[in-house]
Amino acid sequence: MVDRRTRSASHEGLGGDQVEGRRAVRELLAAGRRPVRAVWLVEGQDPSAQLDEIEQLATRRRVRVETVSRARLEAAARTEAPQGVLARARPIDPVDLDELAAPASGVAFLVVVAGVTDPRNLGALLRSAECAGATGIVLPRHRAAHLSPTVAKVAAGAIEHLDFALVGGIPNALERLSSLGVWTLGLAAESSKSIYDAQVGTGPVALVVGGEERGLPPLVRRRCDEVVAIPQHGELESLNAGVAAAVACFEVARRRGG
Amino acid sequence: MVDRRTRSASHEGLGGDQVEGRRAVRELLAAGRRPVRAVWLVEGQDPSAQLDEIEQLATRRRVRVETVSRARLEAAARTEAPQGVLARARPIDPVDLDELAAPASGVAFLVVVAGVTDPRNLGALLRSAECAGATGIVLPRHRAAHLSPTVAKVAAGAIEHLDFALVGGIPNALERLSSLGVWTLGLAAESSKSIYDAQVGTGPVALVVGGEERGLPPLVRRRCDEVVAIPQHGELESLNAGVAAAVACFEVARRRGG
Repeated sequence: MVDRRTRSASHEGLGGDQVEGRRAVRELLAAGRRPVRAVWLVEGQDPSAQLDEIEQLATRRRVRVETVSRARLEAAARTEAPQGVLARARPIDPVDLDELAAPASGVAFLVVVAGVTDPRNLGALLRSAECAGATGIVLPRHRAAHLSPTVAKVAAGAIEHLDFALVGGIPNALERLSSLGVWTLGLAAESSKSIYDAQVGTGPVALVVGGEERGLPPLVRRRCDEVVAIPQHGELESLNAGVAAAVACFEVARRRGG
Repeated sequence: MVDRRTRSASHEGLGGDQVEGRRAVRELLAAGRRPVRAVWLVEGQDPSAQLDEIEQLATRRRVRVETVSRARLEAAARTEAPQGVLARARPIDPVDLDELAAPASGVAFLVVVAGVTDPRNLGALLRSAECAGATGIVLPRHRAAHLSPTVAKVAAGAIEHLDFALVGGIPNALERLSSLGVWTLGLAAESSKSIYDAQVGTGPVALVVGGEERGLPPLVRRRCDEVVAIPQHGELESLNAGVAAAVACFEVARRRGG
């Protein structure tokens, strides 16, 4: 692992420097975890409690609020529907995998994202994971959809509350997590073992989720301590991957005393 | 309730007559629950196992397959990405609420959809519900997003396996379901009772889910036998409504012996 200051300056960083959408910007300001350079609001928007709250939070944090034309905001926006709000902030610094495995706030509940490439799916997964109480996210350094404006917006502010580690390879990261006492639980639709029989309790756990089409890569799957599926009761072949990950996150939360 | 033949001919029908997207068309043909008039495939598409399967299923069902230009299909399409496939079929006939409450296939597991207006959200909910083993869906006759091409596509074929009832008002429908011995379980983020303490077992159950922004309307909420929330463990205010509904569906499935 390189030093975090080195990495955040490189092109391999996590991103998160541009945040769009009302929930995401509200949460960026409310969490106050990283410096915010500016907030842009489109002029002449209909009154909204969310917009008022964004202005109040920005004032409290002494963040400059600029009123801009819709055209100017949309020219700068990188999501389809920025909802009249855009913020620029310091990118999110990744943390070391070992740090993620032993969070200061309690027992680790990690989600290892192996192969999710669609930014909307990654954003939705981060939102669900945060709501289920996940403490950290493991992302592959290359290949992955990092914290782009679309991911940040769909995550609805979850990126402000989660810690992230970037790793060179998921299989090695799983080996390291196991050696640190984190139970690695793979989610794979084709597994014959039910998630309701998983050996997950209140200890450190990492839920490993695969991509939209191909699921868990074979080497990733082999490195998991246990691989389980969500029992399916219908005629359809499969649940949406993001929904499956959310159901699994909440089952882990339930086991942890949810 | 009016006679189902009368209703399916009216403008208040369920829809489902135009189906787009590979999964949805594959499932329409595989389920074979309703007559299919024609399948259109865009000419010159890259080879795909899914397209081959659609052609084979259509041949087996003696459904005419037409190869059409991309322009022609896109002119007829009503979703953003029809994936080169479109089918026309007989609309889905609604069934009576009483029939939904006592399905021939076993014990009722219903999802009552109160106020979901976005077609993508409704489609995603139907897919998750079907995978969790739901047997039937209750939709309000007016106001709702019915089985439009977008709903059908996002549902990925779930509409072919679910039964649907259209009702004049959700509160009355809940009263009727209760009187028929179906336990009505409302999902509301603001409830202090956990879904993990719900009085749901292996008997007939109807999960009642609200809209994207406002949740369960007060009168709907009052008519539920029990109102529960999914315990939240993060800092974010709320889970996406569709994800919450999916998590609740799978918790009901687990109680039913999942």
